[in-house]
Amino acid sequence: MKKIAVDAMGGDNAPQAIVEGVNQALADFSDIEIQLYGDEAKIKTYLKANDRVSIIHTDEKINSDDEPVKAIRKKKQASMVLGAQAVKDGKADAVLSAGNTGALLAAGLLVVGRIKNIDRPGLMSSLPTIDGKGFNMLDLGANAENTAHHLHQYAILGSFYAKNVRGVAHPRIGLLNNGTETTKGDPLRKETFALLAADETLNFIGNVEARDLMNSVADVVVTDGFTGNAVLKSIEGTALGIMEQLKTSIKQAGLRAKLGALLLKNSLYDLKDSLDYSGAGGAVLFGLKAPVVKCHGSSDAKSVYYTIKQIRIMLETDVVGQLVEEFSNRGD
Amino acid sequence: MKKIAVDAMGGDNAPQAIVEGVNQALADFSDIEIQLYGDEAKIKTYLKANDRVSIIHTDEKINSDDEPVKAIRKKKQASMVLGAQAVKDGKADAVLSAGNTGALLAAGLLVVGRIKNIDRPGLMSSLPTIDGKGFNMLDLGANAENTAHHLHQYAILGSFYAKNVRGVAHPRIGLLNNGTETTKGDPLRKETFALLAADETLNFIGNVEARDLMNSVADVVVTDGFTGNAVLKSIEGTALGIMEQLKTSIKQAGLRAKLGALLLKNSLYDLKDSLDYSGAGGAVLFGLKAPVVKCHGSSDAKSVYYTIKQIRIMLETDVVGQLVEEFSNRGD
Repeated sequence: MKKIAVDAMGGDNAPQAIVEGVNQALADFSDIEIQLYGDEAKIKTYLKANDRVSIIHTDEKINSDDEPVKAIRKKKQASMVLGAQAVKDGKADAVLSAGNTGALLAAGLLVVGRIKNIDRPGLMSSLPTIDGKGFNMLDLGANAENTAHHLHQYAILGSFYAKNVRGVAHPRIGLLNNGTETTKGDPLRKETFALLAADETLNFIGNVEARDLMNSVADVVVTDGFTGNAVLKSIEGTALGIMEQLKTSIKQAGLRAKLGALLLKNSLYDLKDSLDYSGAGGAVLFGLKAPVVKCHGSSDAKSVYYTIKQIRIMLETDVVGQLVEEFSNRGD
Repeated sequence: MKKIAVDAMGGDNAPQAIVEGVNQALADFSDIEIQLYGDEAKIKTYLKANDRVSIIHTDEKINSDDEPVKAIRKKKQASMVLGAQAVKDGKADAVLSAGNTGALLAAGLLVVGRIKNIDRPGLMSSLPTIDGKGFNMLDLGANAENTAHHLHQYAILGSFYAKNVRGVAHPRIGLLNNGTETTKGDPLRKETFALLAADETLNFIGNVEARDLMNSVADVVVTDGFTGNAVLKSIEGTALGIMEQLKTSIKQAGLRAKLGALLLKNSLYDLKDSLDYSGAGGAVLFGLKAPVVKCHGSSDAKSVYYTIKQIRIMLETDVVGQLVEEFSNRGD
């Protein structure tokens, strides 16, 4: 039985969206057990399942504007902290939250703890590509600064994830750079390139450019947390901006365009879905001793469901256990 | 009379698109004189104007895959190099090319030369926002590495440009960062934040996130060349990817969707136009002694026309002369 601790109080739509996602996951997956941390009365309003699910009541929760490290240290009874603590104590195998990202990172680092020999866990998401296959990218902002050594570790982490969770046989690892030529980049990129090229366990395909990310140029893209954060937010901002601009343009146009939009509705929904990409689950704080996974703050029940599904595969394949083994051999 | 040197041989559609853009610009602006550098016979095939235009014939040109610095040093008679040389010799006031970006950067630095006290000229573009006003961002990749001092200089450059060329009275300067709080970022961001906040000549509004760029969060956004390059390419890649995905989705859908797309055609063109944003002109290699402006390699006649229009305003307002004055007072 895979035991998943769920912070029922994190995110804009908590606890309803969280609990509804849990309901669906419990119905679909018979090998999981869910621990819901949060306000018992509120959780019960939405909880349908009563098998393989328990509620651990707490009044405390971390708010979206709490200062992360301080919140983790002071709010010992917060739903998110209790979930992380359950993992540390061996009562749960993984923890999920849609709450304050910084606080979840802090809880992951301070409570769950790093895999031995991993210096700086990174935040990794699955992002959409035009062909629908998607790619993994890290670090998306767990760190403001990284060394080449960290980026090398991200390549290993991402490779294990793509292989185990996404079923990619030989994940192609790309280094995000300002050009594809091997000599490109600042000292961090050049040093990372050398480390990745020298590691024969990796299927390193060289430098990739941000322009080609949606074209499935690599299965795993590694970068430092500052750049990764900027790239992720650029992609999000552009996608949202375009959808909004299209909406405005249709509204301002006449009846003809409105009729057109109506006829095109399914195609536009397809587009929105493929950009949404919540089917791939949440963002993994990767490099910790157990899966610590973040759902988007605005997650609906579907996103929560898919994130539980993702965690289930991470536990099923024991990708974290494999990484513990891998890094114990690699040393620091 | 404003004298503009034009590399007639650079870009995918040269010389036709270049010369056709020149034709239109000469017809619209009576205060410009164009010098066309390149293959005289080919240029003449497309050139309509014969007043205020001259052709300086050369057989040599820089290719898109030439190694930039080497090309500039070896191909002394290349159309791009002759154009830059004309600026250096005082025969032209500015130079435009749609050719090899790296080579144009090298020609700008090595032939035209930097403004005194400016350390690292940056590449600056005008990028689209949802409200149509746009914003300027630099450095978009002229440098692989930058210091806080460089970023401070970019803020001054961008501010002068927005004020003079775009008519923004008090340009809002934003620092691209991984969060909006004042304490965010790596050491480079923190140091830059302090420099910008201390400069009372700037309307510094603090940190901005890549997610908000299309929402007109600032008039000028400064960042290092590596991050700027990644953000620019992410925006381009996402916009292209979405348009392609929409096309695919419409194609795969039935007659209904195709009819819808037909009715929506104008709205979709509007969207494409607003993302294209070529009306704002080309990318300026900013911080040089004269305007050195890069059109996109795939530029059509319209883009070339708008870039000439942009250069004309840069010369009319003497924004570069103002910057020479400004930086002579600031020292290094």
